[in-house]
Amino acid sequence: MKVEVFVTLKPGVLDPQGRAITQALHGLGFAGVEDVRAGRYLTLDVADNTTEAQVRDMCQQLLANTVIENFRISGI
Amino acid sequence: MKVEVFVTLKPGVLDPQGRAITQALHGLGFAGVEDVRAGRYLTLDVADNTTEAQVRDMCQQLLANTVIENFRISGI
Repeated sequence: MKVEVFVTLKPGVLDPQGRAITQALHGLGFAGVEDVRAGRYLTLDVADNTTEAQVRDMCQQLLANTVIENFRISGI
Repeated sequence: MKVEVFVTLKPGVLDPQGRAITQALHGLGFAGVEDVRAGRYLTLDVADNTTEAQVRDMCQQLLANTVIENFRISGI
């Protein structure tokens, strides 16, 4: 079974990678880009009997740094 | 306007980061995890008149390495 996990920086947390991407896009002429936030997109192939609670545990223990990041689970 | 961009490694391309995550999850006792693929999740705040073709150009020129990565655009 495929599960998608989205990990994003919490609002207010500085995102130097996103800022660098924004500036690079401006440099390429894409002036309409106001902001970019960079996160991680993980696709997990897990056993069919895996529960959402287990995936949430994985996020809290390893996949996300919950001090500064939020996560969202999809497809379970 | 918010646009989401998902960047993933093409099938067959080795993913050392995903493999390391898989092994770390096994080490934490999550034996049901068969595979993890790690990608990027970008949230772009763009001008309302931005077209999907422009976002596709951003992906091809900067956001994705189309030799080894696929990208998907959502929310436009």
